[in-house]
Amino acid sequence: MTAMKAAVPLYQDLASRLAGLIRAGTFSAGDRLPSVRQASREHQVSITTVMEAYRSLEDQGIIEARPRSGYYIPPPVLDLSKLPTAAKHSTKPLVIAQTSIFQSVMDLAENRKVVPFAAAAPDESIIPSAKLASITNAVMRKFKSDALRYTPPMGRRELRIALSRRLLVAGIKAGPDELITTHGATEALLLALRATTKRGDLVAVETPTYFGILHLIRDLGLRAIEVPVCARDGMVVDALEAALKKHRIAACVVQPNFQNPIGSVMSPESKKRLAKLSESHGFAIIEDDVYGELSHDGGRPSSIALYGGNVIHCGSISKTIAPGFRVGWILPGIYQQEVKRLKTIQCPWNATLSELVVAEFLDAGGYDRHLRRIRQLYALQCARTRQAVIQHFPVSCRVNQPAGGFVLWIEMPAEFDSETFTVDAVAKGISLVPGTLFSPSGGLKNCFRLSCGFAFGPRTLDAIATLGRLAGKF
Amino acid sequence: MTAMKAAVPLYQDLASRLAGLIRAGTFSAGDRLPSVRQASREHQVSITTVMEAYRSLEDQGIIEARPRSGYYIPPPVLDLSKLPTAAKHSTKPLVIAQTSIFQSVMDLAENRKVVPFAAAAPDESIIPSAKLASITNAVMRKFKSDALRYTPPMGRRELRIALSRRLLVAGIKAGPDELITTHGATEALLLALRATTKRGDLVAVETPTYFGILHLIRDLGLRAIEVPVCARDGMVVDALEAALKKHRIAACVVQPNFQNPIGSVMSPESKKRLAKLSESHGFAIIEDDVYGELSHDGGRPSSIALYGGNVIHCGSISKTIAPGFRVGWILPGIYQQEVKRLKTIQCPWNATLSELVVAEFLDAGGYDRHLRRIRQLYALQCARTRQAVIQHFPVSCRVNQPAGGFVLWIEMPAEFDSETFTVDAVAKGISLVPGTLFSPSGGLKNCFRLSCGFAFGPRTLDAIATLGRLAGKF
Repeated sequence: MTAMKAAVPLYQDLASRLAGLIRAGTFSAGDRLPSVRQASREHQVSITTVMEAYRSLEDQGIIEARPRSGYYIPPPVLDLSKLPTAAKHSTKPLVIAQTSIFQSVMDLAENRKVVPFAAAAPDESIIPSAKLASITNAVMRKFKSDALRYTPPMGRRELRIALSRRLLVAGIKAGPDELITTHGATEALLLALRATTKRGDLVAVETPTYFGILHLIRDLGLRAIEVPVCARDGMVVDALEAALKKHRIAACVVQPNFQNPIGSVMSPESKKRLAKLSESHGFAIIEDDVYGELSHDGGRPSSIALYGGNVIHCGSISKTIAPGFRVGWILPGIYQQEVKRLKTIQCPWNATLSELVVAEFLDAGGYDRHLRRIRQLYALQCARTRQAVIQHFPVSCRVNQPAGGFVLWIEMPAEFDSETFTVDAVAKGISLVPGTLFSPSGGLKNCFRLSCGFAFGPRTLDAIATLGRLAGKF
Repeated sequence: MTAMKAAVPLYQDLASRLAGLIRAGTFSAGDRLPSVRQASREHQVSITTVMEAYRSLEDQGIIEARPRSGYYIPPPVLDLSKLPTAAKHSTKPLVIAQTSIFQSVMDLAENRKVVPFAAAAPDESIIPSAKLASITNAVMRKFKSDALRYTPPMGRRELRIALSRRLLVAGIKAGPDELITTHGATEALLLALRATTKRGDLVAVETPTYFGILHLIRDLGLRAIEVPVCARDGMVVDALEAALKKHRIAACVVQPNFQNPIGSVMSPESKKRLAKLSESHGFAIIEDDVYGELSHDGGRPSSIALYGGNVIHCGSISKTIAPGFRVGWILPGIYQQEVKRLKTIQCPWNATLSELVVAEFLDAGGYDRHLRRIRQLYALQCARTRQAVIQHFPVSCRVNQPAGGFVLWIEMPAEFDSETFTVDAVAKGISLVPGTLFSPSGGLKNCFRLSCGFAFGPRTLDAIATLGRLAGKF
């Protein structure tokens, strides 16, 4: 009995010392704890004491036993309450903050010497280059110089027909003459903003959101109003509705499907509410749907346009086929004339060969089969990278669980500085995008984005481990 | 003696009646006059009288005898004084006029159902599609998915290296990292204007000039000041200098080599003067050099940059290789940082495959041989179309004699309305561009442009004859 009494504080003391080491990062997610025998030597306690201490930590969920392997620090349990929270947002109109790190991030995005977590770009495992090479060859033989002429200002009809068929899956019924093809989705978004706003106007944007759109908004002399995004249901329509009561909003830019960087999908109800709001308040919905076809489970969420509203739908094949083709499109709806006018002035022609090759691939190149394959690949790459993050980052980190697309959004404690972190990461040969670029006000300093477009392997795993160590220093 | 006296008024009477018919267009440039025998019957005069009348007309230069063929209405003698005159220009700042016909002209430009005199585009005889197909194939095999990734924001280095070598011919010594590749020259011009001006600024433009630049200027909220172009020496630098005394000019857009639509080349002296003016008055020279390599006699006139000055050089391969690639470039000089910043926001990526194929063609694809071939073709197509114009149009028309490039600029009497003419031509299945589109103030109504990018043949000849008849009705 006396021995038992004396043993209780001993194992409790050991358990609390071990918990302290885990909190301090001596052991972190994924690490194996010293074996019972080893711990007994290290801490100068009996094997029984170690076993009781470990059992106590296991009961508290701090460590886990794996049969025939030992005791481990488990990955944090990531229920929804542990996903990144809807960012704090300003309810006041903002001029988009300029972030000096933007140019450096862009310069590094396509640099192959660094481990590329910055660019949301598909890599060679995703791009069907052999198939595209053979289609390109066939198109050149068939069309000859006709594949190398100026396109008409609205784009090659072959592509517009293929797209109009493809968009049916998203619930969009549009004839080829309602579509205008563009130099990627960036041009589509620029045209949409220009057609629906004038300098000084207010544009509602998700926060966090794709940084490209923020730079376009700033560049056009527009102001932004932030609308938070929630991991479960995308843009928080209640917050937009509240903003509409206070401000005249000219356009609302939204990624309803697999939002970049959150990975959220708006529910049909939210889409419907947003569509109705656009009608009752007379603003344009600029829908950026570049990730719409990249559901991890295969379901294709619909366009907001299915529910009515003043929707301008924008898309591209940069994430699904290949970014280097620069093939995007815009379905301007009631803004058709103005978009066409602007396109004719600004960027009147597209890359002809790209348009013909993509049209052929969509129509007869096995695009659906390709899409099934890359959805699985993206899902796998996201899951593996996410698992590595959980394993190597401090337990305080939260990471999203995207239902589609291929970016991870990581939220660290408030004092974390993602810009310094990015600089440190680049010094270690790893690129990523700091959270500040995703915020109209330059906030979200404690967050960052990792893209999983590149095949997961030892190099990526090492890089995540390095990032985890760097993050642990903050 | 009496007979002789009576004969004098007879042949003179016949000569003046024939001159009247020629003025009225019964016989026009290139037509053969009735034979002496036939005219003798038609006019009920002796063969001697006809012969004397013809000789009198010949002395006046109204008709010409061709050995073993007969008498012809000669093409108008086109010495320099008969080339289109430097357009009357306004010396006041202008907001670019909006011309409603622009969109229709653009829509028709790539329509193959009309005879395409509107688009300044090379046709299948010019585009080396077989060679490009084989290069494309080789590039896809060599680079695989790397040919389909995002380009870096400045463009693929392979292309920038090839261009930096190529530009040596134009007297430009620039390393690959000084160049930024663009989505055609239109993007280059847009970037150049944006980097050097702010809303409300004054931009000097040639008149007449390429309409695309006028739309960009208007779209950016800039004002224009007209500088006339002379057929002999391009932009009239004296006129620019006079304007500089009255106005602060932010930038001057100029096509020094084979100006579109005049075809003129600025002399080295004029280029030097312009360069010096840009230094002394602190404005940017935006050099649009898309026709620079298309000299009909093979000489490559140099860039203004050879002579110093704040030059932004812009070019593309749309006229020399193929427009559908959308490959252009900008050499921003001292505006490098700002141009790069704007490009990263607006159009951060180019068509990757296009860039690699063009780089390979420039480097190792026989580009120089190709260029020799197409220079001859363009020269021939211009000469033939020009000859047909002279033959079929009223004698009052003046047509330029371009030393390079492939557009003809036709000036009709002041009362001519080229917009109505364009509408009539389109109704006959022929496209062209009315002069009003080339003028900042919507002037030049009596002029129009015919592009000779398409192979000359019976269809084009018929179309010119039709246009000549339509023009004759004005």
